Amino acid sequence: MTLSKSPYRGTRDFFPADMRLRNYIFKKWSEVSELYAYEPYDGPLLEEVSLYLAKSGEELINEQIYSFKDRGDRHVAIRPELTPTVARMVAQIHREVAKPIRWFSIPNLMRYERTQRGRLREFWQYNADIFGGGTLGEIEILQMAVSLIKSFGATSEHFEILVNDRRHVEMIFKEKVRANEEESKKLYKLIDKSQKIPHDKLVEELKLILNAPTREEAFLSYLSSKDVPEFLKQMQNSGLSEYVKFDPTIVRGLDYYTGLVFEIFDKHPENRRAIAGGGAYANLLQIFNEPSLEGVGIGMGEVPFTLFLTSHGLLPDFTKPEFDVLVAYTHPDAGTVAQKAAAILREANLKTELFLGEAKPKKIYAQTDRKNFNFVILIGEDIQIKNLKTQNVHKLKVEEVDKILGALNGN
Amino acid sequence: MTLSKSPYRGTRDFFPADMRLRNYIFKKWSEVSELYAYEPYDGPLLEEVSLYLAKSGEELINEQIYSFKDRGDRHVAIRPELTPTVARMVAQIHREVAKPIRWFSIPNLMRYERTQRGRLREFWQYNADIFGGGTLGEIEILQMAVSLIKSFGATSEHFEILVNDRRHVEMIFKEKVRANEEESKKLYKLIDKSQKIPHDKLVEELKLILNAPTREEAFLSYLSSKDVPEFLKQMQNSGLSEYVKFDPTIVRGLDYYTGLVFEIFDKHPENRRAIAGGGAYANLLQIFNEPSLEGVGIGMGEVPFTLFLTSHGLLPDFTKPEFDVLVAYTHPDAGTVAQKAAAILREANLKTELFLGEAKPKKIYAQTDRKNFNFVILIGEDIQIKNLKTQNVHKLKVEEVDKILGALNGN
Repeated sequence: MTLSKSPYRGTRDFFPADMRLRNYIFKKWSEVSELYAYEPYDGPLLEEVSLYLAKSGEELINEQIYSFKDRGDRHVAIRPELTPTVARMVAQIHREVAKPIRWFSIPNLMRYERTQRGRLREFWQYNADIFGGGTLGEIEILQMAVSLIKSFGATSEHFEILVNDRRHVEMIFKEKVRANEEESKKLYKLIDKSQKIPHDKLVEELKLILNAPTREEAFLSYLSSKDVPEFLKQMQNSGLSEYVKFDPTIVRGLDYYTGLVFEIFDKHPENRRAIAGGGAYANLLQIFNEPSLEGVGIGMGEVPFTLFLTSHGLLPDFTKPEFDVLVAYTHPDAGTVAQKAAAILREANLKTELFLGEAKPKKIYAQTDRKNFNFVILIGEDIQIKNLKTQNVHKLKVEEVDKILGALNGN
Repeated sequence: MTLSKSPYRGTRDFFPADMRLRNYIFKKWSEVSELYAYEPYDGPLLEEVSLYLAKSGEELINEQIYSFKDRGDRHVAIRPELTPTVARMVAQIHREVAKPIRWFSIPNLMRYERTQRGRLREFWQYNADIFGGGTLGEIEILQMAVSLIKSFGATSEHFEILVNDRRHVEMIFKEKVRANEEESKKLYKLIDKSQKIPHDKLVEELKLILNAPTREEAFLSYLSSKDVPEFLKQMQNSGLSEYVKFDPTIVRGLDYYTGLVFEIFDKHPENRRAIAGGGAYANLLQIFNEPSLEGVGIGMGEVPFTLFLTSHGLLPDFTKPEFDVLVAYTHPDAGTVAQKAAAILREANLKTELFLGEAKPKKIYAQTDRKNFNFVILIGEDIQIKNLKTQNVHKLKVEEVDKILGALNGN
């Protein structure tokens, strides 16, 4: 039987060029997180399903989760998001550690999705959370989000942060719309899809929920409001005014948000999509019978983020690997000298490819089209060190192989 | 209902100290791989089970694999090893790329194991493979293995590489033991467990397989042989003689090895275990209906490797995070200046924690017991920059916050 060479649907093979791109993004995400004194963490790939049942939205559990029974009959799932895991971990240690707790992670997650542009089944997601930081923590998460994205060369021309506050929305629902709890829940769902349906459809559905013209009007007036609410003013004073915009339609689907909610959007007209999102939650530790500890989190997926960078031409070229030296030999007896040269170069932290087996210079130089090297060293009757930038050639005797590093640095 | 705070059995929560250790190991593994011009890659978390059925050993499939049906009724498994994946990926591209292909990866893998010291259900494993490198590729993989381990400060006192060659064993089985194919298979299994059973038990089982005293004697003579076979001599000339030792009992359980086989052992008497293993295979691409391309691979798990480093005291202390500056304010109006100071420091690539909210110096300095900082900056009536190594204090006026970087560098 011949097996398929393709990866499982919605997952990817990361060939070296893809992997260099992924490493580039993850490295910057990690570096910026550490500039904000966030510490790295990770959780397990599998969690018991009960953890997600307690906190994730219904769609995630019923339609998107990869769950199964293990050989010991435990109902487990491949993590579809990291927030329940971080809550579980913080519940273990929050009594003993100083607050705020600042953590970040870049896990691989899986969701059973209909695959489409920007949406895959296996993907990586940057997660950062601050626990016990209050309103200043909310500001810090947004400042860090801006730094994360700017570190790739993006500016406020490329992205914007649309924010809202669930406390603000609650207040409007209660005082202006005079909605009860059940109505409020339905209104949240309606807001969540308000951008995706035509206005008359929205009005129609609204009528079914509220059935009172003045209340419907209060809701619609909220939905089109442009006045910057009080909660936003402090943010705008914290270097965020260029990036942050109030948007009454942002409420976030996930059940656990209780304060700030935000989504970061690509401004590119042909790639108008959310590249990150998050918010503040007060009660994530309750399911572990722990006192409440408020937190703020952000999630940013590598798939939409890569599309964002691509749409603005912000991605370097990762096609070829970057190495320092190609060492090769053109004489059958020179193999041992070539190995010695490679060992000396690697000892000096130079990325060194050893061409395996003796070969003609032409064949050896063909490698330099496929990979970026700074130097080629050919060992035959003598040792030739060629600087590929300057085309300078420096020669050593074969017995002088120990001097190769000096000769290379001087060339 | 109160949920458990513990991770799923056999998996781990990586709190920041654990994660710093993991990052330390992975970073060195990646750096050394790049010194040898190996390129990074990764495959999907899930593969279709048919891929493993084709090549992995029976024990893996029947007892250890996490497999299930997805929502589309495909039989998939969480990867228990990476070799089938790398073979699938190389099968896609090997016709177009220059050989040898040198790749490395550090995936998370899962196996349903009885958990014990050094054996967990979720673990990470360094994998490197060279395709199309011939015997020189075998030598290179072992040289790189030595460099990988030495980069952590280990020497030949701490580890050894036990090697054998399946071609050598085949030859002995055929010419000395005169075993047919079925007998050979049984003899491989017997060798594989020869270290774990008493000698008389071994002799007994051997009799059941061969039932001819001269042939049994030939087998036992092989098993106790100390003569270095021809295949090893070239290796010993390649800077490997300190590390490499012939061991007739090393044959490796996995079915796909056809040439060199090796295991790297911790020499510590209290932690005598394999920390890495691998070998050469000729026929991994056949299941994809591709022409054969020989390769050599190594796998090194982070769990046994960490035990190895621990047993020799080679692990740095990762308890506390290493940051550059703690910025705090002692006056309620100084929050904005503190934010500005933090922004300037981060712009200069300094890892900067901003203490959220005004506080007394005592409370602020308490942070420096829990995390390593080089500087503390207190903003109140003025800006105080304290160097925690020298205890020097430098002062600026609050209006001079823009000069903070110069003041810090001069302090």
